[in-house]
Parts: sequence; C-alpha cells; structure tokens
Amino acid sequence: LTTFANLPYVHCLAADGVEVEKYDIAILGAPFDTGVTARPGARFGPGGIRQGSRRIAPEFGWNIHTGENVFLDWARIVDCGDAPLTFLDNTIALKQLDASHKRTSGRSANSSEYHIPRIITLGGDHTTTLSALRSTHERWGEVSVIHFDSHLDTWDPEVLGGGISHYAGVNHGTFLHIAHEEGLISNSSVHAGIRAPLMRPKGDIRNDLRCGFEIVTARAIDRIGVDGVIHALRKRVAGSKVYISVDIDVLDPSYAPATGTAEVGGWTTRELLAILDGLRGLEVVGADVVEVAPIYDNPGETTLLAAAEVVRSLLEILVHKPVK
Amino acid sequence: LTTFANLPYVHCLAADGVEVEKYDIAILGAPFDTGVTARPGARFGPGGIRQGSRRIAPEFGWNIHTGENVFLDWARIVDCGDAPLTFLDNTIALKQLDASHKRTSGRSANSSEYHIPRIITLGGDHTTTLSALRSTHERWGEVSVIHFDSHLDTWDPEVLGGGISHYAGVNHGTFLHIAHEEGLISNSSVHAGIRAPLMRPKGDIRNDLRCGFEIVTARAIDRIGVDGVIHALRKRVAGSKVYISVDIDVLDPSYAPATGTAEVGGWTTRELLAILDGLRGLEVVGADVVEVAPIYDNPGETTLLAAAEVVRSLLEILVHKPVK
Amino acid sequence: LTTFANLPYVHCLAADGVEVEKYDIAILGAPFDTGVTARPGARFGPGGIRQGSRRIAPEFGWNIHTGENVFLDWARIVDCGDAPLTFLDNTIALKQLDASHKRTSGRSANSSEYHIPRIITLGGDHTTTLSALRSTHERWGEVSVIHFDSHLDTWDPEVLGGGISHYAGVNHGTFLHIAHEEGLISNSSVHAGIRAPLMRPKGDIRNDLRCGFEIVTARAIDRIGVDGVIHALRKRVAGSKVYISVDIDVLDPSYAPATGTAEVGGWTTRELLAILDGLRGLEVVGADVVEVAPIYDNPGETTLLAAAEVVRSLLEILVHKPVK
Amino acid sequence: LTTFANLPYVHCLAADGVEVEKYDIAILGAPFDTGVTARPGARFGPGGIRQGSRRIAPEFGWNIHTGENVFLDWARIVDCGDAPLTFLDNTIALKQLDASHKRTSGRSANSSEYHIPRIITLGGDHTTTLSALRSTHERWGEVSVIHFDSHLDTWDPEVLGGGISHYAGVNHGTFLHIAHEEGLISNSSVHAGIRAPLMRPKGDIRNDLRCGFEIVTARAIDRIGVDGVIHALRKRVAGSKVYISVDIDVLDPSYAPATGTAEVGGWTTRELLAILDGLRGLEVVGADVVEVAPIYDNPGETTLLAAAEVVRSLLEILVHKPVK
Amino acid sequence: LTTFANLPYVHCLAADGVEVEKYDIAILGAPFDTGVTARPGARFGPGGIRQGSRRIAPEFGWNIHTGENVFLDWARIVDCGDAPLTFLDNTIALKQLDASHKRTSGRSANSSEYHIPRIITLGGDHTTTLSALRSTHERWGEVSVIHFDSHLDTWDPEVLGGGISHYAGVNHGTFLHIAHEEGLISNSSVHAGIRAPLMRPKGDIRNDLRCGFEIVTARAIDRIGVDGVIHALRKRVAGSKVYISVDIDVLDPSYAPATGTAEVGGWTTRELLAILDGLRGLEVVGADVVEVAPIYDNPGETTLLAAAEVVRSLLEILVHKPVK
Amino acid sequence: LTTFANLPYVHCLAADGVEVEKYDIAILGAPFDTGVTARPGARFGPGGIRQGSRRIAPEFGWNIHTGENVFLDWARIVDCGDAPLTFLDNTIALKQLDASHKRTSGRSANSSEYHIPRIITLGGDHTTTLSALRSTHERWGEVSVIHFDSHLDTWDPEVLGGGISHYAGVNHGTFLHIAHEEGLISNSSVHAGIRAPLMRPKGDIRNDLRCGFEIVTARAIDRIGVDGVIHALRKRVAGSKVYISVDIDVLDPSYAPATGTAEVGGWTTRELLAILDGLRGLEVVGADVVEVAPIYDNPGETTLLAAAEVVRSLLEILVHKPVK
Ligand SMILES: [Mn+2]
Ligand SMILES: [Mn+2]
Ligand SMILES: [Mn+2]
Ligand SMILES: [Mn+2]
Ligand SMILES: [Mn+2]
Ligand SMILES: [Mn+2]
Ligand SMILES: [Mn+2]
Ligand SMILES: [Mn+2]
Ligand SMILES: [Mn+2]
Ligand SMILES: [Mn+2]
Ligand SMILES: [Mn+2]
Ligand SMILES: [Mn+2]
Repeated sequence: LTTFANLPYVHCLAADGVEVEKYDIAILGAPFDTGVTARPGARFGPGGIRQGSRRIAPEFGWNIHTGENVFLDWARIVDCGDAPLTFLDNTIALKQLDASHKRTSGRSANSSEYHIPRIITLGGDHTTTLSALRSTHERWGEVSVIHFDSHLDTWDPEVLGGGISHYAGVNHGTFLHIAHEEGLISNSSVHAGIRAPLMRPKGDIRNDLRCGFEIVTARAIDRIGVDGVIHALRKRVAGSKVYISVDIDVLDPSYAPATGTAEVGGWTTRELLAILDGLRGLEVVGADVVEVAPIYDNPGETTLLAAAEVVRSLLEILVHKPVK
Repeated sequence: LTTFANLPYVHCLAADGVEVEKYDIAILGAPFDTGVTARPGARFGPGGIRQGSRRIAPEFGWNIHTGENVFLDWARIVDCGDAPLTFLDNTIALKQLDASHKRTSGRSANSSEYHIPRIITLGGDHTTTLSALRSTHERWGEVSVIHFDSHLDTWDPEVLGGGISHYAGVNHGTFLHIAHEEGLISNSSVHAGIRAPLMRPKGDIRNDLRCGFEIVTARAIDRIGVDGVIHALRKRVAGSKVYISVDIDVLDPSYAPATGTAEVGGWTTRELLAILDGLRGLEVVGADVVEVAPIYDNPGETTLLAAAEVVRSLLEILVHKPVK
Repeated sequence: LTTFANLPYVHCLAADGVEVEKYDIAILGAPFDTGVTARPGARFGPGGIRQGSRRIAPEFGWNIHTGENVFLDWARIVDCGDAPLTFLDNTIALKQLDASHKRTSGRSANSSEYHIPRIITLGGDHTTTLSALRSTHERWGEVSVIHFDSHLDTWDPEVLGGGISHYAGVNHGTFLHIAHEEGLISNSSVHAGIRAPLMRPKGDIRNDLRCGFEIVTARAIDRIGVDGVIHALRKRVAGSKVYISVDIDVLDPSYAPATGTAEVGGWTTRELLAILDGLRGLEVVGADVVEVAPIYDNPGETTLLAAAEVVRSLLEILVHKPVK
Repeated sequence: LTTFANLPYVHCLAADGVEVEKYDIAILGAPFDTGVTARPGARFGPGGIRQGSRRIAPEFGWNIHTGENVFLDWARIVDCGDAPLTFLDNTIALKQLDASHKRTSGRSANSSEYHIPRIITLGGDHTTTLSALRSTHERWGEVSVIHFDSHLDTWDPEVLGGGISHYAGVNHGTFLHIAHEEGLISNSSVHAGIRAPLMRPKGDIRNDLRCGFEIVTARAIDRIGVDGVIHALRKRVAGSKVYISVDIDVLDPSYAPATGTAEVGGWTTRELLAILDGLRGLEVVGADVVEVAPIYDNPGETTLLAAAEVVRSLLEILVHKPVK
Repeated sequence: LTTFANLPYVHCLAADGVEVEKYDIAILGAPFDTGVTARPGARFGPGGIRQGSRRIAPEFGWNIHTGENVFLDWARIVDCGDAPLTFLDNTIALKQLDASHKRTSGRSANSSEYHIPRIITLGGDHTTTLSALRSTHERWGEVSVIHFDSHLDTWDPEVLGGGISHYAGVNHGTFLHIAHEEGLISNSSVHAGIRAPLMRPKGDIRNDLRCGFEIVTARAIDRIGVDGVIHALRKRVAGSKVYISVDIDVLDPSYAPATGTAEVGGWTTRELLAILDGLRGLEVVGADVVEVAPIYDNPGETTLLAAAEVVRSLLEILVHKPVK
Repeated sequence: LTTFANLPYVHCLAADGVEVEKYDIAILGAPFDTGVTARPGARFGPGGIRQGSRRIAPEFGWNIHTGENVFLDWARIVDCGDAPLTFLDNTIALKQLDASHKRTSGRSANSSEYHIPRIITLGGDHTTTLSALRSTHERWGEVSVIHFDSHLDTWDPEVLGGGISHYAGVNHGTFLHIAHEEGLISNSSVHAGIRAPLMRPKGDIRNDLRCGFEIVTARAIDRIGVDGVIHALRKRVAGSKVYISVDIDVLDPSYAPATGTAEVGGWTTRELLAILDGLRGLEVVGADVVEVAPIYDNPGETTLLAAAEVVRSLLEILVHKPVK
C-alpha cells in the first residue's frame, strides 16, 4: 500500500528461518514517542514520512543534478514496514526495536559483494537512534556520528529526566550519552545545527566533549557557508565509519513545524540537502530521520515532504558508497 | 493568567505547613498521556480545557435554566494549577499525582460545615482517574463510579497492554480494573455511553461485571431517552457516594474530535449535559474530565468548549449537594 | 465574481439618482466585527457565507421537499455586495450601515405589486442588526423580532461593556436593548435557542421582558419538539410584521464552530432548518445571518455551508410571502 | 503497511494465473475523483479510510451490541489495495476499474460453499460505483440499489455535465442513470437521505422514477424514525439481491465534512449506523463508501473515522448473510 | 466583489459585439485542475489568489522601492473574472479557455498606442498555460518562455500520462512539449528553479532541449546569486517577445505549501520577487501564476499572499514596458 | 499557570500601596486589536506568545552562543499578566494601557542600582506601542525607536483611517506619527524590514522623515548583509536611549503567518535574531513584540515560537545593558 517511495515491501521482520526477498538497504519504521519531553506524536512519524514520499518513485527517480537514479542502481532498496513497538513501556519497546534491527541487518544482503544490509530508520523520537547504534555497533563496530539537530542530545540522564528514576533517564535528550557509555560511538562525532539552550552553564558542554562530540552551530553557516559546514563535518569523521542521524528539528520550524521540540533560527531545506549531498563518499553504515510528528504539520505537508526528501538524500549517500 | 473559568488561582500544592487560601472545590490539572494506546496529546488537556473556559466567568455565571450561579454560591471554588508530573516514567508520575491529590484534598475546606475539599481533575489520559479514586477512597471510602466513556476501561492488565510487563499493564484501558483490585470502588458502578468493541467475546464482559459495573450503551439513549439514562444511572448508584468520570470520547467525534481514541456514534453535548443535570442531588465526592487532546481539535475549539462546559456541569452537581 | 448563490450582482449602493437594475430582495454584506466581546473575525463573514453558497445556483435550485425554486419565482433576488464600513470607529460604521440600508431599501422594487425591496443582511457581528431594524422601522414600522441566538442580546448597555463609556455600550450584546429604546421593535418578540448564562440573577430577565421578549431555550426542543418551537414562535409574533435574525451561534459548535461566542448544547442544522421552514407564511420584512467568523471554521467549511443554507431558507420565507 | 482494519493484504489484482491467498470478502480501493463537479480530493479517499480504521483490528473486534466479531467469523476478509487508475482520462480509468473488479471478484472464494468473493469498494468519487455495479451484474445479475446520499445521482447525462460531450456526461451525478441504461440495476432501488436541490422541477423526479428509484428524504427520519427508514428500505428491496452504496455526504457536514459536495441538514452517524444494522439479513452482494476527500477533514479525522465505521457495518451485513 | 487587488471588474468575456469598458491589461481566471497527476485543487486557485490580494489596492499601491504605482500608471488594468470551464472534459475545457483568451485579447485596448490587451492568467493547473500561449501566438507570434517551475513540464506525452490515450497525454507536465509542437514558442526559452527528478536518464533532457529550453536549477542561485539568475534569463530571451509563466511550486513548500506537486529545496519569495524585478524592460506579452491549490494552504494564507504578490510583480513588468 | 518562559507571576498591576514582589524587568500583556485595518486577532497575542514560550525555562536557559543565562543574571524578570483592556472603546483601552504601564514601571526595581523597572510588552496590535512610548517618555525622556516592521506606521491620521473621525485616526498604522506629535520620540529613529507599499507617492516618505525616521528596507539585507543592517541601526540611534518595537510582520509570512497584515518577501528568523543580537550594548529602556494573531498560525505554532524567541532576544539585550 503506502511504502516509502513506492518501494517494494519486504517482510524483513519475519521469524528467523523464514526466507524473504533479499535487500541491500532497508527502510525500517520505529513508531515510538514516549521518550519525549514536550509535544508527543512522533509515533506516527514513519507513516507520515511514507505519505510525504508518495510522489517519489523508482521509475521517476533520476536526480536532475547528478543524472543518477538511486533506486535503479546496484542496491536493492526495500521498505520493511514498522518494528512492532509497545507504547506502554519504554524499556520493552527499546528491546523490541533492538531485536528488529538485529533481524533486519542480520539477513544476508542481495549484493554478492557487500554482505550486510544497511538500515535507514524512520522515527519515532530520537531515543530510537540508540537501537540503531547498537545495531551498527554489532555489525560494524564503533561509528562516528554526524548528528543533525538543534539539541545536543548528550545530556547526562542524571540531569535530564533522570534523578527521578533510571527509567526516566532513557529519553530523546540522553540517548547519545548512553550510546557513548555503551561504547557504541567513537570520539570523533559531531553535531550540526545546534542552537537550543543548555541546562548547565559549562557542565553540558564538558559532558558533550566527553561523549566525543564537536559542535557546528546553526549560525555557523552564516559565517562558513554550506561548504564550510561540509568541510567541518567531513574532517571530523574522516577515516571512520559513519552513522548519520537527522533530527528534523535541525530545520527551521518554517520548514519543519511538525516536530516535538521545534527551535527557531534553523537551517532551510536547501541548505540541509546541499550539506547532505556534500557528505557523499563517506562510509555511512546507517542513518535515520527522526522526531517527525505529523499532527503538527501544515495542511500542505511541508514537514513530511522535507523528511521524505532527506531520506532520499540519505539513500543517495548509502548507494554512492557501498560498505564492506 | 488563564485559570478555569477565570477562577482565582490558589497554590494548593504548596508544601505542607504553608498556608494558602482556603477552598471547598479545587480544579486540578493532570498533564499526563503516556498511558495511552493510540493518539497521544492529552498532556495538554488541562491547559486546553482552561482555554475553552475563557468566556466562563463567575460574574457572568447565572444559569439560564436554574437561575443559579454556581460560582457565587456557598462553595469557594479555585484553580490549583497542574500537578507536577514527569512524562518519562508512568510509575513515578502516578505517585506524583497521588501526592498532589493527597495534598489538595488534605487541606481543611473553607466551609465550616463540609470539611474536605473536593477535586475536579482536568486530564490527562484516563489513567489519571486512578489517582483520583485513591484520593476519594482515602477521604470518603469506597465510591460508586459513574463512568461516561465509549470504552469499558476495565480491561485486565494481562489482556490490554500487559502480558508484556507489569509497567505496561497500568494504562488508560485498565485503570478501573486496578481501582477495583485496590478496593477503591464499590460493586454498584456503571458505564454510560459504551460503544467500542471488545477484545474477548465474553471475557471482557465477565471481567467488567467482576469489577462492579453495569453498562448503559450509547445506543440505549435512542430507546430509553435522556430520562431513561438518568434513571438507570441514579438507580445503580443510589445510596452510595459517587465519583463521576467523564472521558470526553463519550461524545461523538463530531462534538469532541480532540481525543485519542474517538469512537463514532456517540452522544451529543446537549444529551450529555442534560444527563449530567439529571444527576443533581447525588453525593458526588470527586469528578474529572479526561482524554482531551487539544491538537486534534477544530480551529473553533469545539472540544475545548464542550469539555469546559462539562466541567461547569460537574461543578453545579458538586455545589448543589455538599458532602460531609 | 463570487456572489451569494451565483446571483447577479447589482450596485444597489450606487449614488442616488444612478439607475440600477431593479430587485425585490437584496443580499447585503455588513463586514463589521468591532462590536464583539470575544473572538473577532466576523468582518469576513459576508465573503465567507458567499463562499459557502458557491454550489447553490438558481438553475439548480428546485427544493426537493417543496418542488419550488425560490430563485425562479416572482421575486428578483440580487447580491448588492458589501456596505462600505470602517473598522476603526463603530459609531461611524453604524452610520455607514444605516445609510447603506436606507439606499438599498429605498429603491423601488422590481415587482409592480410589492414596492419595497426587502434585505437579507450577511453579518458581521450582531450589532449590525441594529441598522437593519432601523431600516425596517423606517419602511414598515415596528416589527416583532424572531431572534435565533444562544445569547439574549438585550443586555443593558450599562451592564454589558458600558459603564465605561457610551461608545462601549453599543455592541453585539446590547443592540436589542437599544432597538427597543429606539422604538424599532414591538413587545411581541421572541428569542429562540437561548442557553448562555446571564450577568445578573434576575435583572437580565426583567430587562429582557421590558425589551419585549419571550424566551424559548435551546433545551425546550427536547420537550416540545421542532413543532412545538414553531408553534411558540408563530404564536408570539402572530399578526405583526416580523424580522428574523439568526445568530449562527444558535447552532451547536459542532455545526457552526466559526463564530465568536460559541456555546455548546445548541441545535442541529436539521432542527434549525425545519423550524425556519415552519415559519413560512409570516410577513417577514427583513432578515439576517450574523456572527459568522470564517477563520474558526473547519477545513470543510462546515459553518459556511450551514450559514448559506440558512440564508436560502430565509429567502424561501420571503419569497413565499410577499409583503406590501 | 496500513491496510483496512489491519487486515492482511492480498495481491488480488495479480495477473491471471498467479495464485494468491483466497478470500471471501475483498476491500478494494478506487482512487479516482475526476468525475466530480465541485471540490476534488476523493482520489485520496481509500488511503484516508484505511487511516481512519487504524484502531480497528480483528483481535479487538467483538461488537458490544451483538457479541460477534465479524473478522473472526466464517469469512476471510482481506485488503486488496488500490486499483491502478489514471487521473488523466476518465474513460480509461473506468475501464481499469472494471478490469480490477472483474479480476478481484473472479477468483474463487475461500469458502467452499459461497464461491464468489464479494467486494467493498473504498471510493473515490461516486462514478466508481458504476464499475462495481457492472461487476455485480456480471456475477449476480441485476441488483436493487440502496443508495445513501444527499443527492439523487440519477441525473440524465444530457442534463448534468453532458450536452457538452459524451465524455463529460459520465460523472458522479449520472452514474445511476447510466447503470440503469446498462441494465445493471432493477426497478426496486431506493435512495436514502436525499436533501439536495434538483435541476429540473419535475423532470429530475420523473427521470429518477424511470431509473427505478424511490426516495426517502433526510428529513423523513424526523417523522418515521430510524425504524421507519429501515422498514422502507427493506420493503423496497425485498426479495432481490442488493447493492449498498454509501455516499458519505449522506451524513451531515458536522459528521462528515471531508467530502466534495457536502449538504447541511443530514443524518448523524448514530442514525446511519443504526439504519445499516437494520439491514442485516438482506442478500447484499456488494457495497461501497465513496466521496471521502480527506483534505477537507478536521484535524481529529472526524470523517475518516465515520467512513471506516460505515465500512465495518457493511462488513457485518455481508458476513451475517452469505450469498450463493 | 472580490477582484484581484480591488481592481474594477469588466465583463471581458461578453459576447462579441457587446461593448465593455476598455482595458490594457486583463486578469483572467482559469479554474481548471483535471490535468494534474497528484494533489488536485487548483480549480480554486483564481479565487484564492484574489483573496490573497485583498490588501492590495490601487490607492495604496506605491512601491516602496521604485516609488511607482503600477495601478495608477498609463495602463488600465481590470479583472475579467473567470473563464467558464467544465471540470468534466479536459478537451472541451481547453477549447473553452482558448475561446476566452481569444475574446479577452481580441478587444481593442484602452491605450491609443498599444492596441492589444495583454493577459495575466490566474491558474488553474499548468495545462492552462497552453491556451495562453496559443493566444499570445495568435496576437504576437512566437514567444520565448521564461518558465519558473520545479518541474520541466516538457515531458513527451508518450512518456508522461500518455501511452494510455491521447487524451491523457495533455496535462500539466506535457503542455510545453505540446506548445513546442504547435509552434507557439521559440527555441530561446528557459526554465528557472528546476529541481524535481526526471523519468528518463537522458531522454528527458534531450527532449527538453528539442523543445527549446535551457535550465537554471534551483540550486544554481547558491552559486550565481539572484543577479546571476537574472543575467542568465535575460541573456537567454534577449531580443524576443517573452511569456512568463510562474508555477508557484518554484517556491519552497515553506513559502508555498498550497500546490499540487510541491518540491522541497526551492526558492524564497524574496529571491523570486527580486528575480522578477530584474526582468523589467523585457517585452513581456503575457504571463501567469499557476498551480495554486488553496485547500493546502496554511491558515495564514501564506501561499495566497505570495501568489498575489507575484502577480503584482508581473503587472509591474507589463506596465513598465508596453508592447506594440 | 502559563507565564512567559515559566517566569514567576507577579501582580504588578495591584493597586497603589499594595506591596508586591520586586522586579527589574516586567513582561506585560496588552490584549488589544481593535486598531487594526485588516485581519483581527492580536487580542490573543499575549496568551499565544506565552504558549510559544512554554519550553523556555530559567533553569534550562543557558545560551549556546554566549554561555550566558539571561534568567539567572542580575535582573529579576517577572510576568505581570495582562493589562485589563476593553475591546469596545479604543480611547478607553489606551487609557487603561497607559495606566497599566505607569503602574508597572512606577514600582521601585529589585536592583539597588537600577531603579526603574523596564517593560517588554506582548501585543496586541501595534497601537499598543503608543502607551509604551508614553511610559518610557515619562520615565526616561525621549527615545530613539528601532522599529522592525514591514510597514512604516507613521501614517498621518488624516490619511490612514482618519478623515472620517479623530477616533478612527488612532490605529496601528498611525501610532508612530502620534508618538512624534506627542514628543515621545527623538529624530534619530529608524525602521527596519520595510517593504509594504505606500498610500501617497511622496507624501508618506516626507511625513516619515518629519517623524524622525530613516528606512532600512527588507531587501537591503541582500546588499549589506546582517552586519550592514546592524551597523545602520546602531549608527542611527547612537548615543540615545532606545526603544525596540518588533512588529512580527517584519518576518516573512513563511516564518510568521499569524499576523494581521502579513507581507511576503520578509526576513527569516535567523536573520532577525542575528540582528537583534547585534544590538547588544545599546541602552534599551523598553521593547515589545506585537501583531501576533494566533488563530492564523500553523498547527505547529511557527509564529508563536518565533515571537517567544524574539522576546528572549530582547530580554538578553535588556539584561546585558542595565540602564540608570
Ligand atoms: Mn532536536
Ligand atoms: Mn534530537
Ligand atoms: Mn474512552
Ligand atoms: Mn476512558
Ligand atoms: Mn450569540
Ligand atoms: Mn447575538
Ligand atoms: Mn452526494
Ligand atoms: Mn453521490
Ligand atoms: Mn511544477
Ligand atoms: Mn508546472
Ligand atoms: Mn506595525
Ligand atoms: Mn506591520
């Protein structure tokens, strides 16, 4: 019915032993939003992004700039539907998502050369990236994260949400801290588009450094331009395998109102898409677009269209550079 | 700033020992929605209902039908603001809400005759009623519940959400089951407006009976009329203290679209308000309006207006019949 | 371009002496909303109602119930566009509207038998009815008003808005009081659909009686039915010339959310339209639909469609019974 | 991914000779809206209705009134997805839809007793019913149509749209005329809920009779009640095979704003659902819900929820009475 | 009533021989959207753009940058209302639009020097430009087209929509191909703002060249700036008469969500308006703004305001440079 | 309940003699919109901006760029709620606002060094700035105004609205003229972001100069950049005390649709916020954000978020530079 970009649906999550059609890149929905601190609704993000991609289609997919068609290239790309996640217990839901990632990336790829399928996750709130990073760590080891977001998301669970309980400490503002503690990411990660305020004058930044991140602020682009941002990101992660996580709130609310914690003063889609295109050639082993909460969108589906296009850009990066 | 019906704000939740202005009836917000199974957003319900009540004001509050003004009667009615609840751990949040109820109902009333302040809770998802029932139980003992809803909400936690974990079993579809198990409610309770389907052919009904409920379906009104519904409800709870819980989804989505689990074929506001008026004289010790999720409302705030008016009706019931 | 029901536009407001096409019934917009106490926006009501009438057309106008086509009957019906009203001074604006009414009703009708054109005003807030009543008074003398509304609108200017200044006392809640004081209406008027609360326990009702009104409440329909309401209204105004004013907030917010002071518990459009049909045969010399504020409407234009249909019903009443 | 009521997807439209899972009742989408005369958008109706059915699920499908679960009964019900229809040529599109119906109803059913699968079509504008009637005619012969609509839809192509060209004459207001001329329907058909005006004073009614229809108007329900309507419909079609077509505009715009030609003064969902339930026992060989144009819906998806529930009611009718 | 920019309405489409007020520039609506491949709704574009222009008025029209008032200059500008177009047969509708253009441009102008009135069309989907080009060809011969769009719209009918039928091949993605084949446009045309993907890797571009177009992509502006774009466009069409067609989807969906085939990564209104201003001095013989589908707009009418302003800019170009 | 940025509420408007908590900077709402010429609704602006600030909080307020937290600095910042203003008489309402400003700025500040509390007003339409300037004049003498707006707002009351009556001449387009005539502002003021057209070819500019203003147009930023704008503004007001007024319509409608007289081609929030940051160090004695009309906002509250962030930037300017 409605798959991302009218791609074929494959039941990637079928029980072990059940044969399914092979694939090289999998789109996987992660309907989850009980890790948010403000406006909920990202549980409907995967369906929303798919709806935003309705006019994207493999047979109509020749990029005007590159002359290439990512859907008709070497990689078989499929939509695996959504991971089955409960809305009623975050701990269980993350385990369910871990399992879905494991199963999806665990099948042998369609390509005879590149054996491990890569996954693009459609969030879901940003907590879902934790499962994705556990998955890439299992298959590829530590990764550098290029983290597009207006927020740091490396908050110490003791500071954000926690203090109250361990359970509360696992959320969309702490998952990168936890990923660091679990040893999933390397110390060559980088944020891009940051502009939201902090909770502690210096502690947050110190902690962020400890988690392995550098910061490219949203306003940096006015000084160094799109090319400068691209350069900074590429330099930071040079030589390592990369995971790209796009919190849609990196865009200005004018471009992406449909998100839970929108911050004004962000990037335009033209800027973001140009930056993403500038990341081609990196060894990207996984990616996601998260925090899309459709109910807050304009009638014209501004955010859904933007999110779908970001996914297409991510696909181009993955197809451009296969990873062994 | 924006209080319910422009009532005075009182900091009822101030620490023990801190004196605050006295009150007889307290409006208390319960911003919580992580116990829902479908569309979230009721965390903004309390603010939404207050916004829907902006044109209600004590000095403009003379009921055209009764000639009475509930705001200028014997009872001092105040708005206590919202209970401070985390969105990140349901177990903690319910404890926080329990504590807020305890503190709010624990102060001595303004009236010299009726010593215990009564609370009308603005939800929040329906799970929040569990805290309210714990509170009425502590102050008044077991109550009969008149439960306006399209759903039973007595599901066994093992059946709805549970099975997965104890944590997941505490939600907006099971709280009445839990209330029964905790001994908070008596076996003379009643549902009104039921129309949603069940999970188990006979088990759900059997379980519902065990929890102490009779059922008046939404369609019953076509047969027995508003008066018949009033009669059935009054008869069922006769002689006991009563708690009235209004899940806004008892209304048809045409009248109350802004809710998480809307079910078509419901009652109109004219019907619901007439039924509520017919409950005057009952000894009601607490009440709530829950499951209002403003983001799903029409631009004209259809649902918020309806919810605010339901709260006014509940106030009239409480003022009409003080309870010792 | 967009006229009511695709009727011909006639420049009724052309300067005296300028000949224009003749007409028997005129639609006149009154874009004015600075007399409101709550949500503004009715200044765009006339355009909105016209938009809601886009699918109504003379050549497609045979009523399924009566087999008649009001647009192709004896009366020439035209749309005169909007009266030119300032938004910046209510006193001036009402004078401008008085003048527009005078000019529109002052031309000789198309019919050789019935000489005075009648006007249906598209509001605008309810204050605009004051000008319309001045106009009917000048042409036909005192009228009985059938006033569909959830509010009394006979408030004493000293009580509502006034006290502050004379200027403030002329508003959408006091215009019927003023009309009474100006001697425009007779003591056989009637409200229908009333449900909003009052400002003074007894004073408001006493004052309302003094202004010449009886009250049929919104809930009365549950007791006496549509036929009972019709009977009550006809009986009250029997023998006199009649003005019908429909404040769209007489409908429930589910049917007419796009209004400034919506009150829940109102009538359905099926009820209102049946009541209006029951008024055929009365000598109606003017009518209006007011308080339509399009920005609060649903995307499907629920209110605009209802308002347009009410205007069509009013047209049927006027055409059915010509008045000398 | 999103199927109606979370039913299994089956590729019913696979090429002849390709084996697919068997089924007894098929849900088939007809994304088509270029046969409309007013607001377009019903091309997104099938997806919209499926979205409105997200909370309906076989395992949670026990009807509170009947104690039955239509999804777990004798019939295997599946969602076949959408027929592939062009938006750029109505003639071609209808042929494509004819072919899809033929293929879907042409497979042998899952039941060993009832051999022909029945189809519930999700429109699409009402023109799509023409294909459905061609399909039922081919499998079962002439049918009586129970046509829920505010409009007659039997207009002569020469009168509505046509005159201009044959092509223009095939549209959502003439398809019943054409169905009659093609001999697909018998002279014992009936409209229910009619209230829109006519184009010709007597011609339209005469023509309607010629097409085999009686009329139950929307307002009739105020006189004869739900039971009276049921009685009239059953009596009219007694003894014949029946096709039920539900134009969602039979509902009042308050209940179903998301449609192209909404008419005020319609039925409530409670009334419509009760009427549909009263049709159980009839030999219904096909059904549809059409004219759902999601972009006009409220944020709370009022119309989509109503349409999905109507489909569920239709399923109950079909399952209740298998047809040989 | 609501005309573009409060301009006088003139019945330009009156039958031949009927005298109407003279004009130099005519605004003409083309309510048509059955040539679209995705979201319909542009049939309401003309009304929408007029609504977006409500605050534009001749007496308040002095441009802050130029100190000129296009409405009070040499040219008499009028609004001719909408061409009468059927929604039920594209072939007929285009003929109707051809005839409307012919009649509107066929009257002798108000100016004694410049005899042929020029037309700015308010779309309608982009197919309507075909009629406009037929019209300019008849009056002025071949023109160069400056085509602002995110899509090429030169697709071969055999490739886009066609293959199925000749009828289907005439649509909003092929009209420039057809215009080329009909010899209406010269080989010095140019696209501006292109970013949507293609259907055939090389064929689409080859075909586009054959149709006489060069491409300035949306992203080119980041490299060559607004001035660079202006320079490229002027250079391309130098020396020829020009037609300017603005598909509103050239803007980013953030600026113009209300369109059928929105593509992210587009231009801002500040950029587009600056580019348009840079085209002054060209001999522009016709222009349009198309693909405005109001139902997808934000409540604040973002798109309608932008489209109206684009029309004003086009008017400034036409007034600045009269054409003999 | 909902205060700006979760700041403490202080009853600054308590009667003289009533002690209240001290403060250095006061947020004051001015719910007023009857001075507008187009779309009303700014009366709900103060509540809307507060809602847009819900995620701003003192304890989470460390600016990522400066490392400072304006809420935990030397100044005590409070929310005083809304001035009590009638909607029914502009003359009275402005007097009420004058009095509220006087009372709020008349209390002695919390700081022992800087004695006069400064006020940031939340509009309300732009007329409300007149009261604010009367207030700063009384406390600090003449000020230079930095006026961010797409409109001049220095129109002569005789030209805009007036001519009709003195009353009509006081409105959101003339208040700066009146402020000049009342001697409240000095001849070193400056507009920023101007792009709307004028009423008189030269008269408006001449008059604007007479009122003491220079103009930086919206498009100037394309030539001189953010830094150039900052430089121009600082240079113009150098050496004087400054009042900053931000009409939200200085932003493009894409960023701030929720305003009454939106003009396309405006600035982005990133640009505006950068400009505001560039004004640090100026002696700003008062500021406001006006013309926010929430009903026109997107569901994601794009405008409300932008307005709240602008207020935060203004707070940073005020805290950065205390004024004696
Ligand atoms: Mn974020
Ligand atoms: Mn994030
Ligand atoms: Mn419920
Ligand atoms: Mn419930
Ligand atoms: Mn009213
Ligand atoms: Mn009224
Ligand atoms: Mn219909
Ligand atoms: Mn129909
Ligand atoms: Mn395009
Ligand atoms: Mn185009
Ligand atoms: Mn201004
Ligand atoms: Mn302005």
